Amino acid sequence: MIYFDNSATTKVHPEVMKTFVAVNEKFWANPASIHEFGHQTNELLQSARKQVAEILHTSPNKIYFTSGGTESNNLAIFGLANKYKTRGRHVLVSEIEHPSILEAAKQLMKNGFEVEWIPVNSDGIIVIDAVKKLLRTDTILVSVMHVNNETGAIQPIQEISAYVRQNSRAVIHMDAVQSFGKLPVHFGALDVDAITISSHKIHGLKGSGLLALKQFMEVEPMLFGGGQESGIRSGTTPVPLAVSTAKAVRLAHDNLQENAKTMKEITENLIPFLTSFPSIKLISPTNRASHIVSFSVRKIKGEVLINALQQKNVIVSTSSACSSRQTTTSHVLKAMHIQDDYIKGVIRLSFSAINTQEEINQFKKIFTNVMKVIKGD
Amino acid sequence: MIYFDNSATTKVHPEVMKTFVAVNEKFWANPASIHEFGHQTNELLQSARKQVAEILHTSPNKIYFTSGGTESNNLAIFGLANKYKTRGRHVLVSEIEHPSILEAAKQLMKNGFEVEWIPVNSDGIIVIDAVKKLLRTDTILVSVMHVNNETGAIQPIQEISAYVRQNSRAVIHMDAVQSFGKLPVHFGALDVDAITISSHKIHGLKGSGLLALKQFMEVEPMLFGGGQESGIRSGTTPVPLAVSTAKAVRLAHDNLQENAKTMKEITENLIPFLTSFPSIKLISPTNRASHIVSFSVRKIKGEVLINALQQKNVIVSTSSACSSRQTTTSHVLKAMHIQDDYIKGVIRLSFSAINTQEEINQFKKIFTNVMKVIKGD
Repeated sequence: MIYFDNSATTKVHPEVMKTFVAVNEKFWANPASIHEFGHQTNELLQSARKQVAEILHTSPNKIYFTSGGTESNNLAIFGLANKYKTRGRHVLVSEIEHPSILEAAKQLMKNGFEVEWIPVNSDGIIVIDAVKKLLRTDTILVSVMHVNNETGAIQPIQEISAYVRQNSRAVIHMDAVQSFGKLPVHFGALDVDAITISSHKIHGLKGSGLLALKQFMEVEPMLFGGGQESGIRSGTTPVPLAVSTAKAVRLAHDNLQENAKTMKEITENLIPFLTSFPSIKLISPTNRASHIVSFSVRKIKGEVLINALQQKNVIVSTSSACSSRQTTTSHVLKAMHIQDDYIKGVIRLSFSAINTQEEINQFKKIFTNVMKVIKGD
Repeated sequence: MIYFDNSATTKVHPEVMKTFVAVNEKFWANPASIHEFGHQTNELLQSARKQVAEILHTSPNKIYFTSGGTESNNLAIFGLANKYKTRGRHVLVSEIEHPSILEAAKQLMKNGFEVEWIPVNSDGIIVIDAVKKLLRTDTILVSVMHVNNETGAIQPIQEISAYVRQNSRAVIHMDAVQSFGKLPVHFGALDVDAITISSHKIHGLKGSGLLALKQFMEVEPMLFGGGQESGIRSGTTPVPLAVSTAKAVRLAHDNLQENAKTMKEITENLIPFLTSFPSIKLISPTNRASHIVSFSVRKIKGEVLINALQQKNVIVSTSSACSSRQTTTSHVLKAMHIQDDYIKGVIRLSFSAINTQEEINQFKKIFTNVMKVIKGD
């Protein structure tokens, strides 16, 4: 199987699984228990938290382990908006955010917040002028993703945050689900206040992730109970998942340069090949993270191509996994105003560092044959 | 190590871990992906859901996999109250619920709901008269736990639900975190509308659990995004955790009789021994689930006993893990009006089927020696 759907999910790194099994074997106490076994387990949890905090350049008590990207994004939207609502009720969210941001923002609207949507250009990139037009003195939250999950487009976070800092008191949340491990992501590199990371997109375990806050930032909780995670995220902290998340984060961080190089080489091999087909339009812009390449075949439905490739054991996806069971057109492609002839035919290839040039070369052969059969004009 | 803290958390069953590793190895796709690998993974997820649904006597589409007991309890409180708020705004919750119910209910109060607390008697058991006094025609939700986590007290669910059904349109949620696998728990045995189960209390993995609804019941979501779990719980469903949860649920269900027998024998050996000490007062009532035995030593702090036992490698806890880092007195013991001489000295021994009579006999020797040293009068 050639698996080019790493933006949907990744295979667990053997080291992560080893960590998970070992922690379940040795440190399976409840970290809130006051006995020694509980203390030891809690110490392991705190050292995992510290590791992640160092990588993200913040304090350990600003790392909140969650059940994944969606919970982290929801916690950011609800928790930050509620925390800072005394300053205002205006929230800005880009049009191309993940549904876990968009849908949470729509809920905010039901609770008396005013949400406005930052548009993107035809490359799927936020234009700073749009932010300038929309930002107000009562804007309390701006949420923009670092790398778009459907196109790989890198968003101008620095430019946006610089403008937001100078012209408002808004806090800035950045969904880094698709960028962590691919680009430098930490509070030193990017002037944002909150960062979302999902483990299963970086060869970690599904059902785990985190929200990180910049030092001195605060958020209101969304889950209530025993007061774990400094009161921000109640529920017995699942230490084996948290330590495995820290492991995945560290592996992704430590191997960033090398992995980025691998993926760049892969896509540099791939893109000229794809664009040599007259019926293919590249959807991913030039300024993209190198693990995602989206393209469309004129007048061919994405599903047709997916099925044809699948018969040759090549796994790719339409624009995203979340929306792939839905029949509606991707909100990202709509926001980019992709032409009718292309909008239904978008295919996303997404890579990880375990993909190889050999796989790309195999893919090229298979794809050439598939194109002959499906006859995109 | 003698581990008598199974109500805080349990050791993972080897079969559960085997399942988790195998699913991560073979079915690690995103179940929302439209390719064959996604379909296969989704089929596995649906078969896990079906298994759980059969055990709980409901439809598969009424099983929502969550990150654990706290999320499930929060989803029940927020989701059911919001779903049925057009019928009324009155909610009843017992005084001895887990913090994940109590704190969620307090949040409801901030959102325009009226919450009242059902008191318990000195055995820590809800008296039906209290329910009769509090229930109103505009009561929309009643949440009572099946087995209390600090005392093991079994609550009169049948009696409560019969009265609630006859006298209101309220929906009934039951927190079964401490009862599933110890007592029969399903919608056929107990006339409730929603049931919470946590995996790590039944030798499953931490960070997973579920909320089950009775057929035709509905709940509003708490997490928003891609619309997974029939739109009720967005976020990539972590298939390895969900399948492992189903495995833990099935093991607990299949071995219920045998496990209950083991734990009954253990506690029948233990209780006469404990009550032979004049300074010891049994906190657990007669009508209790047999995996929890709570007692108190007059004028001795619980922490003292925990530490003394720990030095002999015996792991026990104060009233609960959630509240054990807090210095305040347990809300459950307060609700039971435990006398001052005893309220600070409560120790909880909680068992699982992997505990043995041999461990109990060892414990008796160790405890006798400890009591000589700490001299509870």
